[in-house]
Amino acid sequence: MNFLEERIKRDAVVKAGNILKVDNFLNHQMDVSLLDEIGREFFRRFSHKKVTKILTIEASGIAIAYPVAKEFGVPMIFAKKSKSVNIDGEMYVAEVVSYTHKNLNRIIVSKKFITSEDHVLIIDDFLANGCALDGLIAIVKEAGATVAGLGVAIEKGFQVGGKNLREKGYDLQSIAIVDEMNEADGSIVFRTQK
Amino acid sequence: MNFLEERIKRDAVVKAGNILKVDNFLNHQMDVSLLDEIGREFFRRFSHKKVTKILTIEASGIAIAYPVAKEFGVPMIFAKKSKSVNIDGEMYVAEVVSYTHKNLNRIIVSKKFITSEDHVLIIDDFLANGCALDGLIAIVKEAGATVAGLGVAIEKGFQVGGKNLREKGYDLQSIAIVDEMNEADGSIVFRTQK
Repeated sequence: MNFLEERIKRDAVVKAGNILKVDNFLNHQMDVSLLDEIGREFFRRFSHKKVTKILTIEASGIAIAYPVAKEFGVPMIFAKKSKSVNIDGEMYVAEVVSYTHKNLNRIIVSKKFITSEDHVLIIDDFLANGCALDGLIAIVKEAGATVAGLGVAIEKGFQVGGKNLREKGYDLQSIAIVDEMNEADGSIVFRTQK
Repeated sequence: MNFLEERIKRDAVVKAGNILKVDNFLNHQMDVSLLDEIGREFFRRFSHKKVTKILTIEASGIAIAYPVAKEFGVPMIFAKKSKSVNIDGEMYVAEVVSYTHKNLNRIIVSKKFITSEDHVLIIDDFLANGCALDGLIAIVKEAGATVAGLGVAIEKGFQVGGKNLREKGYDLQSIAIVDEMNEADGSIVFRTQK
């Protein structure tokens, strides 16, 4: 097991409805040492790529993207969730269905921060059905920029997001892939990775 | 001028309605080197205090709290904005009026992450009327914990938040205090600090 799998095994809680609760170290209370290690791991996996920007989505994605941006020495940008109807022409816009909150979010990124010259590494904390990553990819494409890769901390391997994105040819790196989890006994099975 | 005042002078834009736009380095696109320097500066200003937790509010606060938590070697927690009516008893709740978005947010923090033993340093990116900080202070008090101090990156000194909080006796440290700004010529006047 790698460092993140070990931490999940120790501190995560499996809840009904395919919820993996990691709010004591990853997305409510945050362990910055662990996040720094996540940043170094993504750098190790993507350092052969050209990366000019890190893109994530608010809120908890910001804390994953921070150490990655630091490792690469490039700016990070977070897409904002916006309910407002009036989006001026200076924004890239994509629609994202939230699996957790069961609602539709419009996500926006100011056009001035991603140009066709950029090679964008997209980072997020969780991947389940892939809706957030799809939205972020749509924004990078709208900018005419290149998707350098996709990095997520925890992938739910039993949901379709990861499979779909790999089939589309994206270089998707998940530090921990949960293939099975069981609410009854709290057990978690990780996919073996090279 | 300190490093943040210099950056504001160089890259911020003064907009109508008392808006200071810093979206190219602080709250949309983010310069992680600058944020690291902000973290070191808050550590310098609060290192004589006992600090066991860093508390901020989503979204852009997370990127300021991250380097502060790293300097202090303690966990960070971000309060979540919640529209949901059903808050179970496991959450501290406070109501916050957003100056920027002109709406009311309920902010929540899980009770398990702040106890009466904690000394909490509250961090945010902006201070204007102080509503967000008031909400975070209310949560720390509800937990029976101690407010170790308040650190904000940019204070709008011409609005009442900073004055009110200092009068209440809080150790409020703002790295840059904007006392005047002028949309017409883009000029910004900073308060002289020791």
